Amino acid sequence: MDEPVEQQQDVDELEQATLERDEYLDALQRLKAEFENYKKRVSRDQAEFVTRASERLVKQLLPVLDDLERALEAAAEHEEAKLEEGVALVHRSLADLLAREGLAEIDTDGAFDPHVHEALLSQPAEDAESGAVLQVLQKGYRLGDVVVRPARVIVAE
Amino acid sequence: MDEPVEQQQDVDELEQATLERDEYLDALQRLKAEFENYKKRVSRDQAEFVTRASERLVKQLLPVLDDLERALEAAAEHEEAKLEEGVALVHRSLADLLAREGLAEIDTDGAFDPHVHEALLSQPAEDAESGAVLQVLQKGYRLGDVVVRPARVIVAE
Repeated sequence: MDEPVEQQQDVDELEQATLERDEYLDALQRLKAEFENYKKRVSRDQAEFVTRASERLVKQLLPVLDDLERALEAAAEHEEAKLEEGVALVHRSLADLLAREGLAEIDTDGAFDPHVHEALLSQPAEDAESGAVLQVLQKGYRLGDVVVRPARVIVAE
Repeated sequence: MDEPVEQQQDVDELEQATLERDEYLDALQRLKAEFENYKKRVSRDQAEFVTRASERLVKQLLPVLDDLERALEAAAEHEEAKLEEGVALVHRSLADLLAREGLAEIDTDGAFDPHVHEALLSQPAEDAESGAVLQVLQKGYRLGDVVVRPARVIVAE
């Protein structure tokens, strides 16, 4: 039994279109599921990332805590030289650790810069230009591009 | 001109299947693009999360560094009482900061526990049971469930 050629073509096209439709639907459903799983994993990972970042720093602080405790013991036994040595050691360890994390002191030589300095006082000064930093009351620090604390200064009037 | 009913049905089905196929393909392509963008954003976010987690801790360490520097100045000026006081203050600040991060000292009362203790030496001991912790050489710490450093101890033989 011969079908008309045109009708046979329609059936082939229908078969083809149906096949493709089913394939795309299947791919779409699988991608949706994959995306959902990915999102769930990401929110778990992010919590872990934060924990691990703190863990890494906390671990590095343990030797600083140990050295501080040894310094305290030296203080309790009035071993002044050992105490001083201990404090210098603790300071060096902590400063090195923070420098490795990218912490850098904010420069205070020269003119007052409102982006990185905070003026707590202004004073008349004969031998300094107006707006010059006269004295640093508290050191400032930056971490990469971020000012974590401005330098607190006295400026010349 | 009447088309045969069967052929008309095929054409409707073909139209329908083609329409659905195009819709699914379109949805699939849009979801793929969305997934790709999401992945890119996640990898940017994760780097930022780590930076921000360290930044938060580094910020908290600045007052500790300040206090240490004041203690060093006191040492340089031989103000022993002020130095001792300063060291005690620094120790308390750092210990408090680490406790807030979840750091806790590992218990060493009682029997040796290989999960949280590390035996550096064993010694005969008349007044202790075999396997008891006799002395702590270095304090151990855990952060939540993670042992960040086992307690290093001497155990009774």
